[in-house]
Amino acid sequence: MPPADAATVGALMAEADLQGSDGHGAIRLAPYLKRIRAGGVNLHPDIRVIREKAGMALIHGDNGMGHLVMKRAAELAIEKARTAGVAWVGAQWSNHAGPASLYARMPLAHDMIGLYFAVGNANHLPPWGGLEMLLSTNPIAAAIPAGAEPPIVLDMATTVASYGKVKVKAARGEPMPEGWMIDRAGRPLTDAKRAEEGFLLPIGGYKGYGLALIVGLIAGTLNGAWMGRDLIDFNRDASSATNTGQAIVAIDPEAFGEIAAFKQEVDRLIRDFRASERMPGVDRIWMPGEQSHEKRVRQAREGITLAPQLLKTLNAVADELGIKPLGEA
Amino acid sequence: MPPADAATVGALMAEADLQGSDGHGAIRLAPYLKRIRAGGVNLHPDIRVIREKAGMALIHGDNGMGHLVMKRAAELAIEKARTAGVAWVGAQWSNHAGPASLYARMPLAHDMIGLYFAVGNANHLPPWGGLEMLLSTNPIAAAIPAGAEPPIVLDMATTVASYGKVKVKAARGEPMPEGWMIDRAGRPLTDAKRAEEGFLLPIGGYKGYGLALIVGLIAGTLNGAWMGRDLIDFNRDASSATNTGQAIVAIDPEAFGEIAAFKQEVDRLIRDFRASERMPGVDRIWMPGEQSHEKRVRQAREGITLAPQLLKTLNAVADELGIKPLGEA
Repeated sequence: MPPADAATVGALMAEADLQGSDGHGAIRLAPYLKRIRAGGVNLHPDIRVIREKAGMALIHGDNGMGHLVMKRAAELAIEKARTAGVAWVGAQWSNHAGPASLYARMPLAHDMIGLYFAVGNANHLPPWGGLEMLLSTNPIAAAIPAGAEPPIVLDMATTVASYGKVKVKAARGEPMPEGWMIDRAGRPLTDAKRAEEGFLLPIGGYKGYGLALIVGLIAGTLNGAWMGRDLIDFNRDASSATNTGQAIVAIDPEAFGEIAAFKQEVDRLIRDFRASERMPGVDRIWMPGEQSHEKRVRQAREGITLAPQLLKTLNAVADELGIKPLGEA
Repeated sequence: MPPADAATVGALMAEADLQGSDGHGAIRLAPYLKRIRAGGVNLHPDIRVIREKAGMALIHGDNGMGHLVMKRAAELAIEKARTAGVAWVGAQWSNHAGPASLYARMPLAHDMIGLYFAVGNANHLPPWGGLEMLLSTNPIAAAIPAGAEPPIVLDMATTVASYGKVKVKAARGEPMPEGWMIDRAGRPLTDAKRAEEGFLLPIGGYKGYGLALIVGLIAGTLNGAWMGRDLIDFNRDASSATNTGQAIVAIDPEAFGEIAAFKQEVDRLIRDFRASERMPGVDRIWMPGEQSHEKRVRQAREGITLAPQLLKTLNAVADELGIKPLGEA
């Protein structure tokens, strides 16, 4: 792909690892490469706005790397929110774009709130009471600017665990906790290597099923992207376009009031929460995104820790492509 | 209050019971009355738009009944979405408005998608790992228009159970299932009459905590409404203004493509889900809102079933006000 696009995708993948989203960072390099080689991704996409109104736009990703499509979508949402106050930008014919929080965080630099919804790239979740996996882990992310405090950043799959986390467990040869997955008989499934025999559990039972479905509808169906039976499982099929749907919302707090007052309120709230009474044995109350923030700061200083198995894979990929390897752990 | 306003509030409360949201319908009449008598609600509010851009508006509810404020907000969001494609309308100085789905459903009649977020009126949820109840059950609702099928309507508290459901259990003298609430020592709390001694559990543990917080920020703090330590507990304080925050988003699918094609896709998805393989012992796969839809249709025909205890309370209220009672069960 064009060097500038490769640099953009690479930087966003590294940022995923930097903030501890290790299920969505460099671990995806090998599968991305496999898909590129199979012709499943368009390396020279014409990413373009195909529908637009004051408060929204719809982007055609032309089957480009999802990172490129959603960076463009986030930039457009921010630009439009400056005028409209709130702007919603959806994408069709996109692809897997890494962790949801990467894009929800983009409006933060402009003192805006970001919301992000995406259709996952493999179905791991049946309807509540069902056995056929018709839904993906369809993540939700939200980023709220603070003042002196780190921003509040939520990034969650609508399942108890994301499939990315399952993959990390499998790569590390570790078992999964009970409650992440069940098998077709409804029994707990804890062997991450047997993940394909079962399915993920939604948060709050039928509520998580409902959330996954709504996210699928507003990030997928609304945008003319695929979900349900149409979804292409990117673990099984590397050559078909996935028509992935994602959506980002940028909200300008300045449209609702004074941004300085808003950020001050968020700071006050964070401090109230942090100083509140804890359960016995709990050392600290964390805000969403706070641990990730600390990891980002620490790893930016000390370097990103890669699992030995991942390092081995990355070096094998480098070797295959005639690129300088990363070296030993 | 002016008869037209009373009719609007009454109709929305009856609609809550009609669709089976019995924790938010007529059961609230006595507490609303108590608040009105204590001077906690403005019966002649000047509900007005105080900030507006192409894709958003902020409404000052002037401490009027929440039903009036959010009906106005929903109508404005629909009107703005016709031009902007997507419109977000927040409210400050509002009040409890009944079930979230009432408002998320309003855009459906205009072939639009509705999303609704609200700050609940009592804190029942500590931060994850904490003991101080700084968060409410902050609900999320979403309504998606379908074609021949009933619309998909999700209406969920970000806790395993809403406090409204706890109140229904208490009113009926029934125990709560384990997992709804815990006491301060972390032990399951199942006696609904002792609800004040414990707190609600968030869905998916820390994920539900994060969702409740984000909803509080975008429906409350962003609008200049209260949450966290500032929240007025409407169960304990009937005379102070609550400065309740709520937000509604109207999305016009016609801005993203053809509405007919969208509704056809939603129908197809619903039918795929309904026909999918079920777990042993499961009679039917339900879509979110489908049971509520059936209840609405049935009760519109046969009348609304009221719990005997509620009927007694309503008759006592009628007696007190010199109004004709509803009669015996």
